[in-house]
Amino acid sequence: MARTGRRRGKADTRGEILTAARSQFAAHGFAGATIRGIATEAKVDPALVHHYYGTKRQLFIETLQLPFDPAEVAAAAVEGGSEEAGRRLVRMLLEVWATEHGQAMMQSLLRSALVDADLYGVFREFMLESVVQPVVAEVAPDRVALRATLLVTQIMGLAIVRHVTHLEPLASADPETVAAAVGPALQRYLVGDLAD
Amino acid sequence: MARTGRRRGKADTRGEILTAARSQFAAHGFAGATIRGIATEAKVDPALVHHYYGTKRQLFIETLQLPFDPAEVAAAAVEGGSEEAGRRLVRMLLEVWATEHGQAMMQSLLRSALVDADLYGVFREFMLESVVQPVVAEVAPDRVALRATLLVTQIMGLAIVRHVTHLEPLASADPETVAAAVGPALQRYLVGDLAD
Repeated sequence: MARTGRRRGKADTRGEILTAARSQFAAHGFAGATIRGIATEAKVDPALVHHYYGTKRQLFIETLQLPFDPAEVAAAAVEGGSEEAGRRLVRMLLEVWATEHGQAMMQSLLRSALVDADLYGVFREFMLESVVQPVVAEVAPDRVALRATLLVTQIMGLAIVRHVTHLEPLASADPETVAAAVGPALQRYLVGDLAD
Repeated sequence: MARTGRRRGKADTRGEILTAARSQFAAHGFAGATIRGIATEAKVDPALVHHYYGTKRQLFIETLQLPFDPAEVAAAAVEGGSEEAGRRLVRMLLEVWATEHGQAMMQSLLRSALVDADLYGVFREFMLESVVQPVVAEVAPDRVALRATLLVTQIMGLAIVRHVTHLEPLASADPETVAAAVGPALQRYLVGDLAD
């Protein structure tokens, strides 16, 4: 995937920096990436990176912006009743993760959040508030907070096995196989009886 | 938990080094930990660490040794039929993770394996061959390899949420609540119909 067709010369310098930042954070994690390295990849002066985005931490948070609207994902996941929500959610996640932006964001998040203790808060906020809570609140009959964290365990584990540790045969399994296998687990966390 | 009662003065210098290594790998990850730091914590000469354990990588692999026999866990998990295997497995995992050894091992594994690409192999081998495969092979009706990797997604995600990112309310939920909530997912990955 290219830069979502926004390449417009100097007018998109901010975008170039953000793309370079995603790539550097994905490759080196938060701790390892440098403003200098990001500036070099974006072919701009490091001072310009600071000018547009402030500190490295602020820039990191900017790179976590989603390439889609979580509210739309929530709506799509529950469209037509919650019966199939789990499976549909898996399909959507696999689709997003397969994009270049998704890959970079995930690598960056996982590597950074697990290594730098002060980024746990960012990771937590991002995962729970921007992605998981809106979906869960839409369909859950009760215990929204617990369901959201349970959902995170399965989604994060799936992301890691598919895209970080590459455990086979799951890493290469086709989306429908994964949706059929993992969907019911998400479905149960979303709407099932958790004490059953 | 103390050093499993093996403290015997000089005779257990190897054990002291291993304990120090677990602590250092847990705190700094594979890349960040140093033989010198480990030697300092164990109060021995760095040369002795090399003498006993060779390279830092060899020492790291030594620290991954389990404090229990996976075959016993497998046997216990399937004891009395597979109906309750998932829930029983969650209870056992929570118990192991709560020990000091379990905590150190997990932190060390997660931080190192996600950051250092050359350690993926170690992580994969350890998780799949020593822990997961024996349990799955014992009860699975088919697709052992796929089930094993699915099991890893849920177990790894649970470990991360409980002990690394500390997402609440799941991180502090009592073991029975977690076993009831997550057990059925593991149960399904172990023996359920994955295409259902």
